[in-house]
Amino acid sequence: MPTRRDLANAIRALAMDAVQRANSGHPGAPMGMADIAEVLWNDCLRHNPANPNWPERDRFVLSNGHGSMLIYAALHLSGYDLPLEQLKNFRQLHSATPGHPEYGDTPGVETTTGPLGQGIANAVGMALAERVLAAQFNQPGYTIVDHHTYCFLGDGCLMEGISHEVCSLAGTLGLGKLIAIYDDNGISIDGDVSGWFTDNTPKRFEAYGWQVIADVDGHDPAAIKAALDAAKAEPNRPTLICAKTVIGFGAPNMAGTHDVHGAPLGEAEIAAAREKLGWSHEPFVIPDDIYADWDARSRGAAQESSWQAAFEAYAEVYPEQAAEYQRRMAGDLPADFSASAQAMIAELQAAGKADASRKHSQAVLNQIGPQLPELLGGSADLTGSNNTWWSGCEMVDGQSPGGNYLSYGVREFGMSAMMNGMALHGGFIPYGGTFLVFSDYARNAVRMAALMGVRSIFVYTHDSIGLGEDGPTHQPVEHLPALRLIPNLEVWRPADVTETAVAWQSAVERQDGPTALALSRQKLPHQSRNTQQCEDIEKGGYILHEPATTPEAVVMASGSEVGMAMDAAAALEAQGHAVRVVSMPCIERFMAQPAAYQSAVLPSELTARVAVEAALPNSWQGLVGTTGALVGLNGFGHSAPADAVYAHMGLTVEAVTEALKTQMNGN
Amino acid sequence: MPTRRDLANAIRALAMDAVQRANSGHPGAPMGMADIAEVLWNDCLRHNPANPNWPERDRFVLSNGHGSMLIYAALHLSGYDLPLEQLKNFRQLHSATPGHPEYGDTPGVETTTGPLGQGIANAVGMALAERVLAAQFNQPGYTIVDHHTYCFLGDGCLMEGISHEVCSLAGTLGLGKLIAIYDDNGISIDGDVSGWFTDNTPKRFEAYGWQVIADVDGHDPAAIKAALDAAKAEPNRPTLICAKTVIGFGAPNMAGTHDVHGAPLGEAEIAAAREKLGWSHEPFVIPDDIYADWDARSRGAAQESSWQAAFEAYAEVYPEQAAEYQRRMAGDLPADFSASAQAMIAELQAAGKADASRKHSQAVLNQIGPQLPELLGGSADLTGSNNTWWSGCEMVDGQSPGGNYLSYGVREFGMSAMMNGMALHGGFIPYGGTFLVFSDYARNAVRMAALMGVRSIFVYTHDSIGLGEDGPTHQPVEHLPALRLIPNLEVWRPADVTETAVAWQSAVERQDGPTALALSRQKLPHQSRNTQQCEDIEKGGYILHEPATTPEAVVMASGSEVGMAMDAAAALEAQGHAVRVVSMPCIERFMAQPAAYQSAVLPSELTARVAVEAALPNSWQGLVGTTGALVGLNGFGHSAPADAVYAHMGLTVEAVTEALKTQMNGN
Repeated sequence: MPTRRDLANAIRALAMDAVQRANSGHPGAPMGMADIAEVLWNDCLRHNPANPNWPERDRFVLSNGHGSMLIYAALHLSGYDLPLEQLKNFRQLHSATPGHPEYGDTPGVETTTGPLGQGIANAVGMALAERVLAAQFNQPGYTIVDHHTYCFLGDGCLMEGISHEVCSLAGTLGLGKLIAIYDDNGISIDGDVSGWFTDNTPKRFEAYGWQVIADVDGHDPAAIKAALDAAKAEPNRPTLICAKTVIGFGAPNMAGTHDVHGAPLGEAEIAAAREKLGWSHEPFVIPDDIYADWDARSRGAAQESSWQAAFEAYAEVYPEQAAEYQRRMAGDLPADFSASAQAMIAELQAAGKADASRKHSQAVLNQIGPQLPELLGGSADLTGSNNTWWSGCEMVDGQSPGGNYLSYGVREFGMSAMMNGMALHGGFIPYGGTFLVFSDYARNAVRMAALMGVRSIFVYTHDSIGLGEDGPTHQPVEHLPALRLIPNLEVWRPADVTETAVAWQSAVERQDGPTALALSRQKLPHQSRNTQQCEDIEKGGYILHEPATTPEAVVMASGSEVGMAMDAAAALEAQGHAVRVVSMPCIERFMAQPAAYQSAVLPSELTARVAVEAALPNSWQGLVGTTGALVGLNGFGHSAPADAVYAHMGLTVEAVTEALKTQMNGN
Repeated sequence: MPTRRDLANAIRALAMDAVQRANSGHPGAPMGMADIAEVLWNDCLRHNPANPNWPERDRFVLSNGHGSMLIYAALHLSGYDLPLEQLKNFRQLHSATPGHPEYGDTPGVETTTGPLGQGIANAVGMALAERVLAAQFNQPGYTIVDHHTYCFLGDGCLMEGISHEVCSLAGTLGLGKLIAIYDDNGISIDGDVSGWFTDNTPKRFEAYGWQVIADVDGHDPAAIKAALDAAKAEPNRPTLICAKTVIGFGAPNMAGTHDVHGAPLGEAEIAAAREKLGWSHEPFVIPDDIYADWDARSRGAAQESSWQAAFEAYAEVYPEQAAEYQRRMAGDLPADFSASAQAMIAELQAAGKADASRKHSQAVLNQIGPQLPELLGGSADLTGSNNTWWSGCEMVDGQSPGGNYLSYGVREFGMSAMMNGMALHGGFIPYGGTFLVFSDYARNAVRMAALMGVRSIFVYTHDSIGLGEDGPTHQPVEHLPALRLIPNLEVWRPADVTETAVAWQSAVERQDGPTALALSRQKLPHQSRNTQQCEDIEKGGYILHEPATTPEAVVMASGSEVGMAMDAAAALEAQGHAVRVVSMPCIERFMAQPAAYQSAVLPSELTARVAVEAALPNSWQGLVGTTGALVGLNGFGHSAPADAVYAHMGLTVEAVTEALKTQMNGN
């Protein structure tokens, strides 16, 4: 009968062999954490390899994602649909075993990790989602939501600032079902960490209010099991298990050094490691008895069917809640959402209230919020400015288990990566606010949302120099074009309440990626639209104003500059010119329309083109073409009242009018 | 005679009045920290208001930059060239008192703060610079570098992840002359922080190895003075003074609430505060006796002249070191640097070694390093990958005071903001490495370097999908165009060793802003050039290959794609076509050239244009025009060997050749 060490060595062997075969990868962490993974998988984790989407499974996040062979090996051994062939194809094109775990590529991989620190942030978001979901659905005597979130993390994750943001907040929120295991191996890429990382990590996490289980021997299964049991026994605090490990455990000459971190061990060292570990099997050969002991399929099936029975009992007594749970976990919207959103849009258009788009956003939340209990909102300490709080909001805090709104504190990156974790967990549509300029702080989490294709909604207010006095540190100028560069992110910059409502509808209805909403601090005029125009907003760009005669020129704009474009067109029409105005709240959406629609809005013969935006104008270059004109910014902003900044930076109706005139004069 | 409280109330009154007059700003922090500032300024700070550039001054950083009126008031009161008129113009266009402290706008403002957490990171960089400079220049019996760095910070800074990164590292490095004062007022914008920030901050900083002086009454001058004295007495650990304060101290109805954080108090509350504080003077009126007690001019002049005498004595004994100190602090390069760089470039061109540009970068550092003791290098735990370590490097660590290289740990944002602090301190040209994709983590610090115009050099290796197996989380695709959007940042992406040398020369010689170097993981071919071509590299774009006959088309590229462009041109020339190749290592530089030069490289009649870059092609749109072609990427990368990724994503010599053919056929 295999020993526990034998079971763990199966991970070590697969990691060594796959990295060697790919001639690329990180064997050190999987070999170091193999014993921990073995105990977690075989003694703790509730999961069903046959159904990686069982909603009540425990979540597992490998925050030190470079150790991807650890999770691939564990998934393979425990019975997921990840055959040996895939492990042999480690790091090859279109394999299910990419260099870092990629959400969607591999059954059982809960999130994409690799950019350090974001995995633990995802895990905090998942644990928070579990808690809120439990509060929303569990009933006395009927517990249908009750699972743990486990996270492995290394020195790198703990050095990254985001680990501070989210672990501090997890402590404040008292996320008792979050269990993190720190791979304390003393090595990072530059070598022994004592030169650059000397934190007393247990003390640090105690300062956050966590339960800390220090000095666990990460190669002693009994000690690991005892630590995990103690972690699960603590309901009110997240737990950090600090496990001392040897990186590359088993490699006789390289273990414990950074040589084993990120490169193949080489044939000789692998042979010596096999010898030392007592692992006599050929590469990629796992004995049947080891497979048998790892196999989690029957246990997992039993766990799921037991839960399924409990859920059916719940559904008997609480049929509406059960249906709602299923809807939420499937990520579906209420059946009538789209129709009621359309009705809301028509009403808002008719009411025609002028206000700042951040306030319109709040008004829209007040309308759609009651329909969407899956909304889980928040702000990075700018609730009053971001207008992210709506009338049905209730605070999530450390005292009460429920709520639907987080004051994340001044933690933009942590917030964004936690949101991704909530979206991945399922049951929620997270949205979170900060100033547009501080999207910089969170940029890689926005990228990760786009890469994974999850429905996180980033609410960015104070979206231009129009924020005024706070000055250039707070005035975005390059952020709109820079966000538009992130593949699969949709950036909406609405011009008034109607466009704001469509932007929210689009963000909520989008199933395959994140949305950023860029919203003004300052009041914007309301625009007239007929029904067709209202319907066309969702196409990302549309004709907002058509002159009575054939247009001589077109001016296009987004958000707060649409009003300027309309004013310029009106001024020129008073002088006998005919100018089309195109409102373009979402360039990515417009560019995804059929060519015929795009040409109808921007006909190729209409070469006199001006684009206006209070940002660096790069996004518009392709739309105006080589001969068109851009009215935008050419550098950083200034601290002054908004009107003064606009005027000083040359962003005026007169400038737009002049640019249009020049264009009509044949540029 | 004024009491200390009266002196502090001068700050409070100026803050209330200036914010009220601007109808915008943050009175809470200045009123809360006024007593602390008063003690620091009047009892501790070594500075000379008449010479804000005295190199041996103590540095002061207001990390909670929204409290800008605190520093403006202190600078005004202590005798800097910041007249009352400027305080009355708080937050107005072109005033010396912008909404947040802006480096360069105001004498005495050491760094731009506002984006929370970066001020403390700048301060850590300044303190590190002081220590290294002291080790490099002080001699037995001659101490010419010996000053402190003080930093005020609030809850927001402490919540931000970057505070973890840099405070952890400051503890490891034992920066004893760094003294941070935490404004523990229990309030952030969303309200009482107990809902989202419950860290035991003293314990957290003890875990970092700091001296922590907890529970100081921030309104008791004697307690503040005692804490500062204890901080200065500790040579080997940075100190955090945790000062309990009341935000908006003195406002009878609003103090202690978030209402006082970010908005004017209103006339009524200001009147009541005047009453409560016993401050009977009109707005912007400061009695002479209060000015007299604040006036630091004669003390400062004496401090500077005493130091000047010491420096002159030092210069007697160590004339070379003294001259070198003056050169370094002036930010000047060695007189022969430019000439020797030119010679190096010619030699490297002649030697013609093909290698990865990250390795060329290291080779260049090995050549210029010995000439430039001001280089202070490092990497965010990727030293071996970034090739940032050169033969003259010596580690800066907690044990020895000297060195010129930091292993920053996995702390990209902290590293970048610390580098800005070193550059601001003077005496150093900081450079620091990470993977290009992780520029995301540090993006706002790069922006701050550009906004401040400081000479930080960001070394970004693994600059494309060419990094291969690590996959999409590690493969930048949008980062090159996104970095190019940051105003005043120069992004260099060299094609071979010669261009790499020019990029380094340009970065080092640049006096008014930061540079990013994008360097390949993979080996690149060497290109032939004549002398003129070598000289033209610094123009950012130049003709690398001119066909024998009039060119029918032009292909332009940067970095690793220049070789592909050359191969495509060669293939087409073999078929009888004439194709110009333009290498464009720095688009910003090229766009800054005179129009005549730009036209010579890219004549308007040469409309058949193709641009190639292993990135989203947005940067090149304006250069190829509406009719030109872009060969680039259209989404995220893949985990696979580099060649496979290039081929799968359509970035091949054949694709470039086809695009050129289509262009020559009249597109």
